[in-house]
Amino acid sequence: MITQISPLGSMDLLSQLEVDMLKRTASSDLYQLFRNCSLAVLNSGSQTDSSHELLARFESFDINVLRRERGVKLELINPPEEAFVDGRLIRALQANLFAVLRDILFLNGKIDNAGRSLQLKAEDPVHITNLVFSILRNARALHVGEVPNTVVCWGGHSINAIEYQYCRSVGAQLGLRELNICTGCGPGVMEAPMKGAAVGHAQQRYRDSRFIGLTEPSIIAAEPPNPLVNELIIMPDIEKRLEAFVRIAHGIIIFPGGVGTAEELLYLLGILMNPQNHDQVLPLILTGPKESADYFRVLDEFIVSTLGDEARKHYSIIIDDAAEVARLMKQAMPKVKEYRREIGDAYSFNWALRIAPDLQMPFMPSHENMANLNLSPDQPAEQLAAALRRAFSGIVAGNVKDIGIQAIKEKGPYKLNGDPEIMRRMDELLQGFVAQHRMKLPGSAYIPCYEIIK
Amino acid sequence: MITQISPLGSMDLLSQLEVDMLKRTASSDLYQLFRNCSLAVLNSGSQTDSSHELLARFESFDINVLRRERGVKLELINPPEEAFVDGRLIRALQANLFAVLRDILFLNGKIDNAGRSLQLKAEDPVHITNLVFSILRNARALHVGEVPNTVVCWGGHSINAIEYQYCRSVGAQLGLRELNICTGCGPGVMEAPMKGAAVGHAQQRYRDSRFIGLTEPSIIAAEPPNPLVNELIIMPDIEKRLEAFVRIAHGIIIFPGGVGTAEELLYLLGILMNPQNHDQVLPLILTGPKESADYFRVLDEFIVSTLGDEARKHYSIIIDDAAEVARLMKQAMPKVKEYRREIGDAYSFNWALRIAPDLQMPFMPSHENMANLNLSPDQPAEQLAAALRRAFSGIVAGNVKDIGIQAIKEKGPYKLNGDPEIMRRMDELLQGFVAQHRMKLPGSAYIPCYEIIK
Amino acid sequence: MITQISPLGSMDLLSQLEVDMLKRTASSDLYQLFRNCSLAVLNSGSQTDSSHELLARFESFDINVLRRERGVKLELINPPEEAFVDGRLIRALQANLFAVLRDILFLNGKIDNAGRSLQLKAEDPVHITNLVFSILRNARALHVGEVPNTVVCWGGHSINAIEYQYCRSVGAQLGLRELNICTGCGPGVMEAPMKGAAVGHAQQRYRDSRFIGLTEPSIIAAEPPNPLVNELIIMPDIEKRLEAFVRIAHGIIIFPGGVGTAEELLYLLGILMNPQNHDQVLPLILTGPKESADYFRVLDEFIVSTLGDEARKHYSIIIDDAAEVARLMKQAMPKVKEYRREIGDAYSFNWALRIAPDLQMPFMPSHENMANLNLSPDQPAEQLAAALRRAFSGIVAGNVKDIGIQAIKEKGPYKLNGDPEIMRRMDELLQGFVAQHRMKLPGSAYIPCYEIIK
Amino acid sequence: MITQISPLGSMDLLSQLEVDMLKRTASSDLYQLFRNCSLAVLNSGSQTDSSHELLARFESFDINVLRRERGVKLELINPPEEAFVDGRLIRALQANLFAVLRDILFLNGKIDNAGRSLQLKAEDPVHITNLVFSILRNARALHVGEVPNTVVCWGGHSINAIEYQYCRSVGAQLGLRELNICTGCGPGVMEAPMKGAAVGHAQQRYRDSRFIGLTEPSIIAAEPPNPLVNELIIMPDIEKRLEAFVRIAHGIIIFPGGVGTAEELLYLLGILMNPQNHDQVLPLILTGPKESADYFRVLDEFIVSTLGDEARKHYSIIIDDAAEVARLMKQAMPKVKEYRREIGDAYSFNWALRIAPDLQMPFMPSHENMANLNLSPDQPAEQLAAALRRAFSGIVAGNVKDIGIQAIKEKGPYKLNGDPEIMRRMDELLQGFVAQHRMKLPGSAYIPCYEIIK
Repeated sequence: MITQISPLGSMDLLSQLEVDMLKRTASSDLYQLFRNCSLAVLNSGSQTDSSHELLARFESFDINVLRRERGVKLELINPPEEAFVDGRLIRALQANLFAVLRDILFLNGKIDNAGRSLQLKAEDPVHITNLVFSILRNARALHVGEVPNTVVCWGGHSINAIEYQYCRSVGAQLGLRELNICTGCGPGVMEAPMKGAAVGHAQQRYRDSRFIGLTEPSIIAAEPPNPLVNELIIMPDIEKRLEAFVRIAHGIIIFPGGVGTAEELLYLLGILMNPQNHDQVLPLILTGPKESADYFRVLDEFIVSTLGDEARKHYSIIIDDAAEVARLMKQAMPKVKEYRREIGDAYSFNWALRIAPDLQMPFMPSHENMANLNLSPDQPAEQLAAALRRAFSGIVAGNVKDIGIQAIKEKGPYKLNGDPEIMRRMDELLQGFVAQHRMKLPGSAYIPCYEIIK
Repeated sequence: MITQISPLGSMDLLSQLEVDMLKRTASSDLYQLFRNCSLAVLNSGSQTDSSHELLARFESFDINVLRRERGVKLELINPPEEAFVDGRLIRALQANLFAVLRDILFLNGKIDNAGRSLQLKAEDPVHITNLVFSILRNARALHVGEVPNTVVCWGGHSINAIEYQYCRSVGAQLGLRELNICTGCGPGVMEAPMKGAAVGHAQQRYRDSRFIGLTEPSIIAAEPPNPLVNELIIMPDIEKRLEAFVRIAHGIIIFPGGVGTAEELLYLLGILMNPQNHDQVLPLILTGPKESADYFRVLDEFIVSTLGDEARKHYSIIIDDAAEVARLMKQAMPKVKEYRREIGDAYSFNWALRIAPDLQMPFMPSHENMANLNLSPDQPAEQLAAALRRAFSGIVAGNVKDIGIQAIKEKGPYKLNGDPEIMRRMDELLQGFVAQHRMKLPGSAYIPCYEIIK
Repeated sequence: MITQISPLGSMDLLSQLEVDMLKRTASSDLYQLFRNCSLAVLNSGSQTDSSHELLARFESFDINVLRRERGVKLELINPPEEAFVDGRLIRALQANLFAVLRDILFLNGKIDNAGRSLQLKAEDPVHITNLVFSILRNARALHVGEVPNTVVCWGGHSINAIEYQYCRSVGAQLGLRELNICTGCGPGVMEAPMKGAAVGHAQQRYRDSRFIGLTEPSIIAAEPPNPLVNELIIMPDIEKRLEAFVRIAHGIIIFPGGVGTAEELLYLLGILMNPQNHDQVLPLILTGPKESADYFRVLDEFIVSTLGDEARKHYSIIIDDAAEVARLMKQAMPKVKEYRREIGDAYSFNWALRIAPDLQMPFMPSHENMANLNLSPDQPAEQLAAALRRAFSGIVAGNVKDIGIQAIKEKGPYKLNGDPEIMRRMDELLQGFVAQHRMKLPGSAYIPCYEIIK
Repeated sequence: MITQISPLGSMDLLSQLEVDMLKRTASSDLYQLFRNCSLAVLNSGSQTDSSHELLARFESFDINVLRRERGVKLELINPPEEAFVDGRLIRALQANLFAVLRDILFLNGKIDNAGRSLQLKAEDPVHITNLVFSILRNARALHVGEVPNTVVCWGGHSINAIEYQYCRSVGAQLGLRELNICTGCGPGVMEAPMKGAAVGHAQQRYRDSRFIGLTEPSIIAAEPPNPLVNELIIMPDIEKRLEAFVRIAHGIIIFPGGVGTAEELLYLLGILMNPQNHDQVLPLILTGPKESADYFRVLDEFIVSTLGDEARKHYSIIIDDAAEVARLMKQAMPKVKEYRREIGDAYSFNWALRIAPDLQMPFMPSHENMANLNLSPDQPAEQLAAALRRAFSGIVAGNVKDIGIQAIKEKGPYKLNGDPEIMRRMDELLQGFVAQHRMKLPGSAYIPCYEIIK
């Protein structure tokens, strides 16, 4: 089955040179990425959690960029049937398909065009932030004049039924307060709040529902956009995705998750504890059903013991009270607005938020990098938070990621120059996660992949 | 707790004389009705199935009509807390509350104003139809220029989980085809298709979702509007409600239900088989999951054996294929439009549909009325359909309604002058329903409440 | 040439009973009125000033109400060609044509329907005000939620070129401040401010331009709606039209005119000087080009000498400063809003404004009525204002209207029981108008049609 | 007086790097151009025809680009008072001011950024067309999904009162047919059709009025945008401006003008007679009041005698019939749409129209270039048309432009290698224009500035 699709929402006004560039880019080494992301979009809402399975099931799927006098069309060959109604592609999928074209092919083409210079400056924090802004603007995700109303929701995508229901309740309460939702766009915590908010919006007859999904090429296939996402944006990598989240957010909620979620909290504390962000207004709430109280208790203890009581100023923990979470978020919005207005910042993009370079740059968990981490308490808390995030990220890799496990096998455990007390706390935290079944581990017993060098 | 509510969507532009009239009407014998319907609206989405329980739980609830220079306000005393978010009434409930004010107090006041004449003409079919039109227009439910897209869904409100899921799937498929839903506005079959359609609409980015709930004062408390209803209209009685359904419908779907559903099908056949409606285009589909196939098989056999093969032309039965149901509905819409255009009828209200007086008028199942029913095959099929609907209605009353049971106790079974074959079929049908547990019966064994007079 | 026209903006959703009523009413003695008003609308923008000429030119014009299944259509026979573009009626005229149908036939039919009672209450001030409200609401001229922005402009329709330009400048300045215009809907002062405001609105990219024309059946033919009017409303008579003006107004501007304009000012002072309106906020500005300064000087002197200095509190005179006029109006709008909010009145209709019965009722200038006027200074100023308005109205009739001239011829001059000083001032005022060529007089010399009875 | 202005309609969402670039560009040699164009916009609607006078009158005017956290602001120092209402800049001017920032500073910055490569390719026809497209798209002037409705109006800006009235009538008739207007944005023919169309749109209640003004930096000060222009776009030079006109047009009307207008007609014929445009649908109408009939007669004779009867297929001449002009344009629109649809071209931008390189490139009328022109009939008509346009352009320069007059003074008359018959016709045409007072000549007698070389 072959079908041709016209642009919707994006890419509907291209010059002929741009179409030519797209065609060229589509036949380049970006093709596989573009094809796989497109396939993931066409499978939105399917229940699989495995990108391998997805790709295997639609081996014969193919996608081509066509040039028309007026612009671009996409040709789909053997696309998933579920994406169509009476032969017509579902409109949300059509829009998201062109979001993929836009963010994978178009932006890459553009960046190449502007040439080497941009690449060279890729490590310049100012340029990174401007790139994040440009991608969001190009996706028309920055709405001039809209008052602060975007709540970013983080948490694991494989949560249990009780947690799913709770996330949905929080979403419903946010929706009843006419707040919009931004998540990582996949299933689980990334879907539940949107589902709840959709109902809340309907009850308030709120018609400007925004369900923003921020994803990245390497995970979109494993976590295809859930069917509620009405603004799909694909950021180039995890660091820019995280930056997009915090600059677009007017408030952030962290639901229960695994270690990844802990890592995200450390990332946020690395930013919020930065003295340059002292006056920033960005409410941060950690919440879950009463069954998940332990998760946050353990996390909270770890934070306080390593980063100090000061850290607690930057977040609240609310257990089993969806309405209270939403109420606090709603109450903070006028303060967010007021602060932005005062310093002349945009409501739609938090330019003024300072993100230190070590949070903007990717971290490669080599033995050398791990050994060089400064995990001593004798440094500013925000720097310790950033270092902990990296250590954390490395340990997780050493435990579960192919690349980390392989490195450990070859070179033995990571050697960490850490403060013993901090190391002990980290151990405890990870053990706690193991006890709560929040870590996928290769074997059954947890064997630390690091040792402390006194 | 006392709170004052301003009009939303309705009643926001009243003259001072109209406000005076409202205040007067609100203190009249209509007050209880008005208060109870308002309470039902404020409980939208609550799970109770019993109006007694509802009324008992909120005994201290009170509602007053206030006069302001610029119009009307409502004062709520001890309203259900769930209706509010951070102290503000949820907007859908606010709108529905003023729909109650509009349809209970305002329309009654208006009718009284225009005086006796209207009352006298209440039996004139033309006036009944015009009254139905006026109520719908006053509720702004008739949209000039909108193409046919309204699907009326009928069926029982106490269905099982499998049937609920199926109704939801049909709704999703209708929503994916950008069709709107009109139901009786309560739970079960009245809610499931709306829930499905809401998701379908979102996926198609269709923003004009209409979820019309047509109810009546005597049942709104037992079946409070589900939270998805965004247009609530309260018709004065069951006959006008049925007329509103069929004149606003561009297509009708009948889901599994109890005997009431069978009665509704006979009502429709009484209309559709009328030779004056020979050219009418009004698709009618009976559908359910495969588990409910028997229900429709039994019903179909009864129809064919009593009203003849001809009857089958007016409906299709589709088992376990939600997409096919929606596809057929969608395909019929251009034909509905074409027919209305041709004869100069409105798209939003089917003026040309002929509804015979015996279908417009209420039927009182006294022994005399039952004995006088003409249940012989020697009459036009549409008249037999109407008579069967009445017999049916009476038998149901004799089985389960207080008034009917009492009458049977006093005067013995109804005597029906029916054709023996037709009577046998009716018996079979009811036995079938009993076997499928679709009838609430006082005792366990089914004892016919009628006998055939040869 | 015969053509059929569908409803636009009004009357697009009628019941069949209403259409029947319209057809009946259209064949009643209202037909001539309906036909002539329709013809006037179809001649919008034509330059004739004479209704006789207009009617003579289109003697063969005819209009019929047609009944369709879905509602009403109008059939035009030999309509003016200028009303059509490539065979299609210009949309503004189409809308205004149905405004005529609505306000002439539909409202009259409705009123008859509701029966005698309404007629009997016609003298009840409350009912008059409610009728005015109902007509405006039925014309959808009352917009809930719109902040005060409607400026009523009064003045003569036969003004000179300098005055026309000035009125247009004032309109432009009002338009630049995003204010809307309401006038008597004909040419001259009724057109010029709309023309100016249209340009001002365009420059401010203001898209909700309202150019409301309030007319009455007896003058619409002589003063057909100018082409800018986008909301045409036909009030039943001059008193209800005046009441509609003052209740819909958020500010009033009086441009130079003839005696009629002086009469209107007295009407307003009769209202504004009423102690019950003491707190009302309703800015009133008298303005004209410097060439018209005399007109307002004379008027002002007359007012002060008869009603006292107090009267001056209620109006400002601004000569030759269009921007200042608009600035004052704009500055007053928040105060109008604040006052309405405070007392709970609507923004779109000034319910709280007290209009005394002698200003609401028509005045018949018979010799008896004139003799009974109380023109003594020993009464509240607002009552003297109302009495002066009536005397004035009678004297004008005696000078220029057929009925008045005839009565004077038969019974001699009116005998007025007036205070000599007041009478002298009135004489002076009229002489001033004569000197300024603002009075159409039958002969050349001005002979008073009244005498003072000591 | 100093005031700060926020973006409206454009430039409201800039990255910090873009703002930095703007600030840099604003201090570059582009500053004078930017300042003068901004001043011209702030004088929209002023009656001066001389850019010298304008610049002299506002010598103290200054404009600065300010950087804010959220983007850009403009600071105006001593701006013309007429641009403000009660201290607030008129919104149309605010939008146009940011159009200047966008098209002068922003685009130039962008082009510089992309670097030399673009500059190098500036002669590549494909890149020129893509640049034209990019400028229009960046100005949001290309509306996806809008059906063809844009009529480009050309003609002189110093026309007489009769011609002005006629242009206005044509505009009114176009407006009544819901067509939009695109002109050169100054006074005269560039204003009159917009004025007429605004009234026509109002009468049809058409709310999407587009009055597009396409100008260029070198003339915006002499011809400041008239107050009706609601989309101002500044193209870099005359050739790209002409290309923008013909690619955005769905139809073109040529009103009477001077020699420049004749030149424009030759430009169009150079395109339309190109065999590659054989199937293009682009209606071209030459029209004027009966007083201007001679102008078109002379022009028509010249065209036919030089380019042949074939040329006449590409235009119609309509004298003194505004309605007929509009009717023909309206009738052509479905054909334009159909053709674009058939070949897959955009409705908003005519990609498929072939413009030969010699029409895209600027022509410098040096003696050498003039001598090299091929003015022989032995070539395709479209090439002769293009050559004639250049000869024409040169002769006009030799007659009236400083640079041309100087060159003639130094080197004697241009030597043209033209066909004698063609030269004679050109002479006649220019003599005709002289006779009709359509040429501003330095002295009184017309002395040819060229001679024919056998």
